[in-house]
Amino acid sequence: MKEFDLIRWIAERTPAGDGVVTGIGDDCAVLDLPGDACIVVTTDMLLEGTHFRSGDSPEEIGYKAVAVSLSDVAAMGCRSLHAFLAVGLPEGFAPAFATRLLEGALRAARRFGVSLAGGDTTASSAGLCICSTLIGAPPSGRQPVLRSGAAVGEAVMVTGRLGGSLAGRHLRFVPRQDEALELVARCAVGAMIDLSDGLSSDARHLAAQSGVRLRLFEDRIPVSDEVAAGNPLQAALNDGEDFELLFTVSPGVAHELQRTGLAGTMVTVIGEVVAGAPGVILVGRGGDEAELAAGGYEHFAG
Amino acid sequence: MKEFDLIRWIAERTPAGDGVVTGIGDDCAVLDLPGDACIVVTTDMLLEGTHFRSGDSPEEIGYKAVAVSLSDVAAMGCRSLHAFLAVGLPEGFAPAFATRLLEGALRAARRFGVSLAGGDTTASSAGLCICSTLIGAPPSGRQPVLRSGAAVGEAVMVTGRLGGSLAGRHLRFVPRQDEALELVARCAVGAMIDLSDGLSSDARHLAAQSGVRLRLFEDRIPVSDEVAAGNPLQAALNDGEDFELLFTVSPGVAHELQRTGLAGTMVTVIGEVVAGAPGVILVGRGGDEAELAAGGYEHFAG
Repeated sequence: MKEFDLIRWIAERTPAGDGVVTGIGDDCAVLDLPGDACIVVTTDMLLEGTHFRSGDSPEEIGYKAVAVSLSDVAAMGCRSLHAFLAVGLPEGFAPAFATRLLEGALRAARRFGVSLAGGDTTASSAGLCICSTLIGAPPSGRQPVLRSGAAVGEAVMVTGRLGGSLAGRHLRFVPRQDEALELVARCAVGAMIDLSDGLSSDARHLAAQSGVRLRLFEDRIPVSDEVAAGNPLQAALNDGEDFELLFTVSPGVAHELQRTGLAGTMVTVIGEVVAGAPGVILVGRGGDEAELAAGGYEHFAG
Repeated sequence: MKEFDLIRWIAERTPAGDGVVTGIGDDCAVLDLPGDACIVVTTDMLLEGTHFRSGDSPEEIGYKAVAVSLSDVAAMGCRSLHAFLAVGLPEGFAPAFATRLLEGALRAARRFGVSLAGGDTTASSAGLCICSTLIGAPPSGRQPVLRSGAAVGEAVMVTGRLGGSLAGRHLRFVPRQDEALELVARCAVGAMIDLSDGLSSDARHLAAQSGVRLRLFEDRIPVSDEVAAGNPLQAALNDGEDFELLFTVSPGVAHELQRTGLAGTMVTVIGEVVAGAPGVILVGRGGDEAELAAGGYEHFAG
């Protein structure tokens, strides 16, 4: 059973209910609350051995826990407001370990003006585990950006550079909230997702949920300097944990965004939205086209 | 380092910020959102070996994860609206294990009209871990009930019966949402908390946060039939995981509530709020008085 089968199982049994505008399957849930407020909510669990190693610095682990959720909220074109952190601490942990972990979480929260409004601490007989929950809201008068809004004819863009995150960036990345807020202030955004599993996997999610095909051009995909020896394209497609934003906008806007960047970050047109069976086509340097298979990180694969 | 030291450490570094009415230290955080909405949020992490055993039924573990958070929202006098569930599944888990766990979580959610609006699933190299986050709201026109509102002269009441939860009730308890909503509809409530750590510990939290003394009468504390041999009073005070509600109301209302019950559940006057240094006094059957020490469950104790 793969992660996405499990998510489908859950989604089938939990229809969007009263006040749930978008339920399971986007970067965040979108909720309409009493009093006409719209919020987005995301929850992410990080576990030792899966998302970090026991030797990683506690500050970086705490930072990553909050930053991963900040990235999900940014992918909705929203601003994070309140964070909640539940931590299972290994028995016999040193107090300094817990405080360093929390300092890291607070650093991520403060950087983006987010309050740490609540949490839970408990003893863990296994390793360290952290669950971060973030509540955000769209800018006044706007709606959250979904994965499902891409339209034929739009350009496909990505922030920053992809690949090589495991060299350390996966613990230190800057969530693209500033970029996302400038983006939604400047133009209409068709669809958006953050790259957590890897471009190959996440582009397929966006395509599937929008019911469109994406044509991505190999020679336009910006590869990170941190990609080690090997195949840079494969790294950019499949390493995962880039936490960059993939989004669609009208072609005219796209070239203007590429010229100016967003909040000091480069943004690149890497493809286009076309009609056809949902999926992702990779156009090679020689013009050859191939269906891009999901090669990014999957929990429970195999 | 005990759990409550850690919570204090966090609270000192995270002052209530923009829109955070009540931050760390109550059953839920209280948030004022754009659009004049007030919500409460709680997050609870449940871990194998701490909150359940590997042999417990997956349905009961999933049920408990959501029910624990439902109890926190009820303790604010609020109704739960939306649940989020993050699950770390042991590698090589059977699909049926995951679906049974989720069926249990959905059973708790549906029983109280709560939508499962989002979540996260990930692979765990250690045991099963679950983090449940619930968003609730007070009934229209009301404010959440805090731990800090108890006033001298009020009566102290408790729902149900205490002790013996480890015989199995800790996995099957019914969160007191119906009772809490009837309570706040019928009268003004001074302070409220749910009994997760045990009456001796949780009464002290309520007393400390309200700045009052509680006098509890040993012979009025309702003891559960599930308390095994041994000292029933100690079980009622210290077993923990009762998930009953402890609250304060004016004495006249208290006796009317005791006569009628709340939503079919018995409620009992077990003491009174008096002036003095914050703490809890236990009045014995012979009229002897003693300061009640916290004897309930503490994570990281010792």
